[in-house]
Amino acid sequence: MPARKLNVGLLGCGTVGGGLVELVARNQALIRQRSGVELNISRILVRDTAKQRPGVPESLLTTHPEKVIDNGCDVVVELVGGIEPARALIQRSLARRKHVVTANKALLAIDGFSLMKAAALQSVRLGFEASVCGGIPIVRALREGLVGNRVESLSGILNGTCNYILTRMGEDGIDLDTALRHAQDNGFAEADPALDVDGFDAAQKLKILAELALNVRIGVDAVRVQGIRDITRDDLEHASNLGFVIKHVAGAHTNNGGVALSAEPMLLPRSHPLAAVNNENNAVVVRGDAVGEVLFSGKGAGSLPSASAVLSDLVDIACHQGGFTASPDAKVAATQVVEDARYYVRFPVRETTAIGSISDILERNGIRVSRAAAIWARNGDGQHQVRLLTEACSRQRLDVAREDISRLPFAGGTSLALRIAD
Amino acid sequence: MPARKLNVGLLGCGTVGGGLVELVARNQALIRQRSGVELNISRILVRDTAKQRPGVPESLLTTHPEKVIDNGCDVVVELVGGIEPARALIQRSLARRKHVVTANKALLAIDGFSLMKAAALQSVRLGFEASVCGGIPIVRALREGLVGNRVESLSGILNGTCNYILTRMGEDGIDLDTALRHAQDNGFAEADPALDVDGFDAAQKLKILAELALNVRIGVDAVRVQGIRDITRDDLEHASNLGFVIKHVAGAHTNNGGVALSAEPMLLPRSHPLAAVNNENNAVVVRGDAVGEVLFSGKGAGSLPSASAVLSDLVDIACHQGGFTASPDAKVAATQVVEDARYYVRFPVRETTAIGSISDILERNGIRVSRAAAIWARNGDGQHQVRLLTEACSRQRLDVAREDISRLPFAGGTSLALRIAD
Repeated sequence: MPARKLNVGLLGCGTVGGGLVELVARNQALIRQRSGVELNISRILVRDTAKQRPGVPESLLTTHPEKVIDNGCDVVVELVGGIEPARALIQRSLARRKHVVTANKALLAIDGFSLMKAAALQSVRLGFEASVCGGIPIVRALREGLVGNRVESLSGILNGTCNYILTRMGEDGIDLDTALRHAQDNGFAEADPALDVDGFDAAQKLKILAELALNVRIGVDAVRVQGIRDITRDDLEHASNLGFVIKHVAGAHTNNGGVALSAEPMLLPRSHPLAAVNNENNAVVVRGDAVGEVLFSGKGAGSLPSASAVLSDLVDIACHQGGFTASPDAKVAATQVVEDARYYVRFPVRETTAIGSISDILERNGIRVSRAAAIWARNGDGQHQVRLLTEACSRQRLDVAREDISRLPFAGGTSLALRIAD
Repeated sequence: MPARKLNVGLLGCGTVGGGLVELVARNQALIRQRSGVELNISRILVRDTAKQRPGVPESLLTTHPEKVIDNGCDVVVELVGGIEPARALIQRSLARRKHVVTANKALLAIDGFSLMKAAALQSVRLGFEASVCGGIPIVRALREGLVGNRVESLSGILNGTCNYILTRMGEDGIDLDTALRHAQDNGFAEADPALDVDGFDAAQKLKILAELALNVRIGVDAVRVQGIRDITRDDLEHASNLGFVIKHVAGAHTNNGGVALSAEPMLLPRSHPLAAVNNENNAVVVRGDAVGEVLFSGKGAGSLPSASAVLSDLVDIACHQGGFTASPDAKVAATQVVEDARYYVRFPVRETTAIGSISDILERNGIRVSRAAAIWARNGDGQHQVRLLTEACSRQRLDVAREDISRLPFAGGTSLALRIAD
């Protein structure tokens, strides 16, 4: 097979960029043998050319983006991250009819459709396998492998940091701050973990996957987001005694012609396909009208897994130039509220007699309690926890009731409500 | 986006063919919106045109294969099954420069490479996503999603019948014959289940996946095959008490420059990624040098899941005509024996004192016993079972020792040996 050569301009040479350079060098012959594609990294944009980068040829480095984009490359790989200048660099590349591959989930979440449209107008391709779930080929699976399916729902563990923290809290009986420190020590969490632990990273990835899977556009604020900061090891232990694990789950469900989207910690029964996905791993369950449920899981981030995803996009572009692009003319989805569900709710209170009053207020809001218990505080600070499971109810009504309860004299702080998966 | 029309000639209209006609009718608009491809089933080969086929236009039916292959279609979908006439029909289609999509694992296992070569010579494509693991897009994942990875190993639950039987035996405490009958009643097993329960179906699928993943050719007899017929519910119970589940696992591992291949029942620790894959589901774990372990799971067979896989190949062909084909010039792999492993072994014996003699013979063959127990028969037929776990040892040596032990006066029948996963 004669080799098809693909000249690659690389914007950014951090964790993923460095991994890409390493992987291309290591598996060049294998990739050529498999696909007939010869990848050539022709130029690399960096901030500081003097920095030591083992394995990266110094002669390729430049601090001028135009030297990467305008120098005759076939495809530009954007690994700069963030909104600007990443967006301007991608737009410039597309305008010059370069294919683009990006791992930039934040940018795609706010601007994915207009970038896809710009790519389609220029008849070039925009690859973004690396933006979601690292090396798991989920974008390709949705675009191609499951193309004949009407996707009914999609749910996943999309944030490795949250999953690592919740797994360690549950298995080691440590608190959230300790687990977060372990995550940071092991490279599974950023120095500033807010985007991860508050749920926004998962929400961005969900938006990308849901637009692809459901073939709709989704409004920026359509995802109900809840982070994991309020979850204690007691919550995990209590859930475990009831047969559940707690996971941060991002999900999209079609529902009365619209889409309900949420990224939130949930109680999953141990038999749930996502319940066994532990530590920094990611996973996605897609339910299609033909295939039923399909599960994909693996490492959701990291240098080489993400580089593997970038590589698959590059080979795809080399093999199928001018081929498949996602249709950028999808309609904006009607966003639905999350359907009625059972909830695990915990109220911090100052009196053990509070259970009755709490149940009364819940019932006045149309919420039935299926199971309740008061637990004495472990720390001897005089604070009790009332924990209960509700029957299926509306999240809106539950939040109204929680608000009412928080104003009662015995209330001891903010309550926590976690959805229970069916 | 202007639609690309693809005329599809269909050979065979049984379970999968009927599912394909149904799915194309149902999701035609969605597929067009997503990919710009308009699928048109132009002609269907059947054995008997008079048979009732709800939803299948009678005017498309013919009993003459040449009317399907030679009538101006772009791609031929072979769902006839078996070796002949399926092979001749595929060869005829390729010779007329038609792309071919097939679900025929038996044919691909013995003749996949020569068919791929024939397709490459004609510059047409041969799609076979539906031949392995039904709707799980594992062929596409190996060909494209993980193209940048050197695959180190691949293992999977590739036969839904075996998995259903072992799951039901373990969970319901029923014996193999009863579980097999349930599988047949539920449509998860053929009237003649030999190909499935004796392990050959899994071995065929393994060969297809391993050739793709490892980019080598594999000899027809390279896979060590062991079926599940000898497994009793006591084996499952005993394994469970030791923390294991028993699954029929097909695996390929690179090993000293060669490949070790086996399709056999194995003991898996409960934490193993395949341990939670139950009932008729299939799953594959791929370990790549960049991505680490990636798991794919879902329904491995059935009308619509397999039709979903055929559809993905059709859309792929429409979008990427002349594009990616697997390189058909791979080398034949050196086949390695399966590496040393721990084994669970059960010997039927007539005397409880047999444990000592068995251990002696094993030790004389260099096999160390890590744990042994004699169990009285449940059925009062005077037969005891000696069960033991070995330290890591060679399968060949173990089989020699089992042969020696079977000739001793106290031996009560054929022994069973199951590998334990690391």
